[in-house]
Amino acid sequence: MSTEVTDIASQVKQIALDARAASLTLANVSSELKNKAILRLAELIEENVPALEQENAKDLAAGKEAGLTGAMLNRLELNDKRISGMVEGARQVAALPDPVGESLDTYQHPQGFTIEKVRVPIGVIGIIYESRPNVTVDCAILCLKSGNASILRGGKEAFHTNTALAKLVSQALSETGLPEKAVQLIPTTDRAAMNTLLKLNEQIQCIIPRGGEGLIRFVSENSTIPVIKHYDGICTLFVDKAADVAMAESIVVNSKTHYPSVCNAGENLLVHRDVVEFHLPQIARALAAKGVTLKADSEAATVLENAGIDCEPATEEDWSTEYLDLIISIKVVADVDEAMAFINKYGSSHSDAIITEEAETATAFLNGVDSSTVYWNVSTRFTDGFEFGLGAEIGISTDRLHARGPMGLRELCSYKYKVVGKGQIKP
Amino acid sequence: MSTEVTDIASQVKQIALDARAASLTLANVSSELKNKAILRLAELIEENVPALEQENAKDLAAGKEAGLTGAMLNRLELNDKRISGMVEGARQVAALPDPVGESLDTYQHPQGFTIEKVRVPIGVIGIIYESRPNVTVDCAILCLKSGNASILRGGKEAFHTNTALAKLVSQALSETGLPEKAVQLIPTTDRAAMNTLLKLNEQIQCIIPRGGEGLIRFVSENSTIPVIKHYDGICTLFVDKAADVAMAESIVVNSKTHYPSVCNAGENLLVHRDVVEFHLPQIARALAAKGVTLKADSEAATVLENAGIDCEPATEEDWSTEYLDLIISIKVVADVDEAMAFINKYGSSHSDAIITEEAETATAFLNGVDSSTVYWNVSTRFTDGFEFGLGAEIGISTDRLHARGPMGLRELCSYKYKVVGKGQIKP
Repeated sequence: MSTEVTDIASQVKQIALDARAASLTLANVSSELKNKAILRLAELIEENVPALEQENAKDLAAGKEAGLTGAMLNRLELNDKRISGMVEGARQVAALPDPVGESLDTYQHPQGFTIEKVRVPIGVIGIIYESRPNVTVDCAILCLKSGNASILRGGKEAFHTNTALAKLVSQALSETGLPEKAVQLIPTTDRAAMNTLLKLNEQIQCIIPRGGEGLIRFVSENSTIPVIKHYDGICTLFVDKAADVAMAESIVVNSKTHYPSVCNAGENLLVHRDVVEFHLPQIARALAAKGVTLKADSEAATVLENAGIDCEPATEEDWSTEYLDLIISIKVVADVDEAMAFINKYGSSHSDAIITEEAETATAFLNGVDSSTVYWNVSTRFTDGFEFGLGAEIGISTDRLHARGPMGLRELCSYKYKVVGKGQIKP
Repeated sequence: MSTEVTDIASQVKQIALDARAASLTLANVSSELKNKAILRLAELIEENVPALEQENAKDLAAGKEAGLTGAMLNRLELNDKRISGMVEGARQVAALPDPVGESLDTYQHPQGFTIEKVRVPIGVIGIIYESRPNVTVDCAILCLKSGNASILRGGKEAFHTNTALAKLVSQALSETGLPEKAVQLIPTTDRAAMNTLLKLNEQIQCIIPRGGEGLIRFVSENSTIPVIKHYDGICTLFVDKAADVAMAESIVVNSKTHYPSVCNAGENLLVHRDVVEFHLPQIARALAAKGVTLKADSEAATVLENAGIDCEPATEEDWSTEYLDLIISIKVVADVDEAMAFINKYGSSHSDAIITEEAETATAFLNGVDSSTVYWNVSTRFTDGFEFGLGAEIGISTDRLHARGPMGLRELCSYKYKVVGKGQIKP
């Protein structure tokens, strides 16, 4: 960085210009070289565990000082398990097929030339994230493998850890002969840097915010660069009148309790009126046995009370609340149409499931629910890039444009058309 | 519209809510029904030519009164030729395959259930356009065929014509039994309506602005809804040292002069230094013979002057100017690398061409130029949805996310995952 670049805005602009230049090189780098850099990074991380943990200790100490909650400190911590997770993740990404250069379609023009649609990187991707420092490495690697230059802007709590990780990334790039500016960490967590970054739409082609709703909302409202949003999941499970009750119990319990703090966990349970008296008590008892608090509309509450099961009243607000906790809201519906209308109104278009043995009802649900992933007799917990065979995941898009649902390497790409002829002109 | 909905913001909000509801129905309407509505619209337009021309005459008279330029009045005019163009376009779209429901990919999960990726509509699309009234019908039909509800916001100059056309669209929808709110024209051209519209990201999933750079910039800077931008084309032609000069002449003349006012017309000409003395005079004379003004850098100017061909000096600004007119900027470059660096710096990532007989140089160019369409020995004038075999076109995206280059029916779609199993839960 030259000395005349003194203020934050110029510094961020320079980072973006360097990223743009690096992205043009990176777009045509061989898979071998990209994989070599990723594998070298895995080694470097392994070789530098004590140094990384030392930098992380600084962040943790500062976090305690600043009064971060236990959950926040937990997210911030880079322990042995998380470090080996990063290393293993890097090796997995290196082993994945390269998405760049794949031919997606070919059209033979009547005038005798060929139009080929080819997958190419998006260009420069800005990742804005909060306290988890492993995001630095995970995102850098996914962007690198997909041929994109990346600009990383991490949270201030993880600044020392992120800086140490980014240094290893730079080292892996330069040792491999790849442009060092292909991955850059913004060297300040000043808010002004992010505000500048979000307006650099000539250099940066895509912003992916990773974090809570507040961050995502701020980024989407202030960015002139297209943003791929990863909002929360308000996932609903519908037990149809033709449900197998044992299966319903198993899927509802799995969706709700397997890992309650993630976006593909169930939050709402709808039960068909015709079977609510028979099925709800069994399912509710299984949930209660796992420690789940039940919130119910008046009709479901009557059924639960008659069966001697405790519950609290559900309010209008509950239907669109992502608890991320052992709480579930229960409502009785007349049929699949009411269930679909409920989900399309209160859900977040993430993941929703029907449990039924009737194909016709299931088909209506799969077609009619406007969510990225709709399940028939499967737990919602499977919405995930690895489970979907993508091999890796940068997140789960709640947008409709570009990528929807789990985003892997292919979703980090755009395409271009290559037209090859022998002098054809437009008649 | 109920009487309590009095102010513009509530009115626009209601339009968006109605569109969202209509979109959920439309997403699962059969191809037959959608085609029936489109063909009925074609008939209705044919049956109502005098009425349409009468409404258009009002707009034209008001435009003349308001002092619109000849070019603006021309865009506004709905003459017999344009009406039959709309009708023919509608019939062509009806005949195209339905993009909705197509299976894009299937993954068999190791636990024995199936994950199918299926093409679905985006949802609600807002189209914001300027003076051409035929956009009303063209966009309504493309959105309808792709299962999307649309909200149209046309320019104030075309208000009477747009209103008359939108009435026919509503009639075609209701006669066919499709939701009438599947296509809605905002019934006011008050700027407040557009400002409200651009913030309704819960109801509207995508905004496509169609018009000049000012409109697109305003929309992208003020929208909280993802925008697919269709910016201008600054297209460059590179005549390599290994070019066939007759082919180079033919392609450069075609790209520049075939239809100078469109985005895929050539604006810059780069010539390899090794052949500039031999090739440039021939190409420049052919351009001059078509009335093209030549702007040249000093090196090219010397060659042209030595050959007795008039030219003006090209400035730094010229390299990134979209003339849309019979003007071309000419520069001498050392090699394909300099040509690519020039295009990646000054171009608009739209369409660029190399003319060469050397495959290696051409490959470097096709890979290294960061544009939606890169041509080898073909005129840039082919960047167009019809020419690319898409059957129709809503525009040419200059974005990288979602759609790049010509956008047809498939590019107006998103996808969802349908997961079908037998009770699988996450272990």
